[in-house]
Amino acid sequence: MSVPVAIASLIQSSAAALDALDFHHWLSGFTEYGQYHITTADNQRQGLPLGLMHALNKDQLRDRIASISSVNVYEPHRYRHILSQTWIKGQGLELQYITPFAVYRITPSKPTILFVTGEYQDRVEYSHSGVRFTYRTVVLDNDMIDTLLAIPL
Amino acid sequence: MSVPVAIASLIQSSAAALDALDFHHWLSGFTEYGQYHITTADNQRQGLPLGLMHALNKDQLRDRIASISSVNVYEPHRYRHILSQTWIKGQGLELQYITPFAVYRITPSKPTILFVTGEYQDRVEYSHSGVRFTYRTVVLDNDMIDTLLAIPL
Amino acid sequence: MSVPVAIASLIQSSAAALDALDFHHWLSGFTEYGQYHITTADNQRQGLPLGLMHALNKDQLRDRIASISSVNVYEPHRYRHILSQTWIKGQGLELQYITPFAVYRITPSKPTILFVTGEYQDRVEYSHSGVRFTYRTVVLDNDMIDTLLAIPL
Repeated sequence: MSVPVAIASLIQSSAAALDALDFHHWLSGFTEYGQYHITTADNQRQGLPLGLMHALNKDQLRDRIASISSVNVYEPHRYRHILSQTWIKGQGLELQYITPFAVYRITPSKPTILFVTGEYQDRVEYSHSGVRFTYRTVVLDNDMIDTLLAIPL
Repeated sequence: MSVPVAIASLIQSSAAALDALDFHHWLSGFTEYGQYHITTADNQRQGLPLGLMHALNKDQLRDRIASISSVNVYEPHRYRHILSQTWIKGQGLELQYITPFAVYRITPSKPTILFVTGEYQDRVEYSHSGVRFTYRTVVLDNDMIDTLLAIPL
Repeated sequence: MSVPVAIASLIQSSAAALDALDFHHWLSGFTEYGQYHITTADNQRQGLPLGLMHALNKDQLRDRIASISSVNVYEPHRYRHILSQTWIKGQGLELQYITPFAVYRITPSKPTILFVTGEYQDRVEYSHSGVRFTYRTVVLDNDMIDTLLAIPL
């Protein structure tokens, strides 16, 4: 089974929106009750609930995004997502779209560095207005996470 | 809308040709009046005209390629392009194919290093002999560019 | 010509299986007489027979896999494969599927590092039970290979 074009586009445009610091566009990729989690592979394997970022619905994502532009103080930087090929895991209600990624951090007047590697585990929903994430889990490979996780991945 | 196979092939074979130092094959991916530019994200955002490499038609690209094999003296190295998923931006006459990339530099007896990250912004034209670039802009993420930009990206 | 979905899935699931240390699943991607080789671009260019890992059939791959879990002592680590876009090289009996890649090595409590870059050169066979590799050559870009090549790539 191949990845439907609309879902591939959703995954690609979400990465592109973050790379362009266009959080409004990124938000539009989630349903109103869409969840977003960042965790580590170790945490996920052990079934540990705690992750690095959590949003249980789109309003919590909106809060998160609002805090980036107003409250948070952080060194100006942006990301570059390199997406590996997306593949399909499971089937039926358990169907997920898996996209491994490497994210680089670009900071003015500094060398570009590898920031994190990991994979997106996505569940989506079709509606009349298009395909959106209902559940996106970002699973990071390394548990040595930079504390500077200000921008979503 | 999905990326047509012929265009995906053009993007992939251009990267592969550069990685194989096969500049003749790389050149064949451009129309006679095809333009090729390398710039930075900052320059592009500010609308600055100056970039790192410019060719306003295929003859200027031919000159560039000729200079690599004859005049330029540089440490022998080659690239490895890792292409993220290609997505489509805009529509109609403004339609572009965007391909984020990471390029590694491979030098004999030295560790492989991340060279640059960025994205291709491509416009193409169909003809009886296939699809070719009419306008390829290489937008680099970082403005700390290695001066050693001898080979096109 | 586009890459058939079944072949793209085989390439993606082989990378995912290695990243998950699921060697049994990785093995299932090869025919009984499937060959697997790891070599370098320099070796391949010079037609040198010697590579870094060799298996002339699936039984030799089984031995290799068995040795990972029983005999070999090595620092616990795993990989993250980032696959570039797959393209098709040659035609007819010479047809190969080429997938450039970057592989990162993830080690507990250590920074993630770029391990190797290179490309898969794959030949496959269709049967009633699906598509499998008959010949997979892993061509590494750099000849400065980490001696710690315990897990297949």
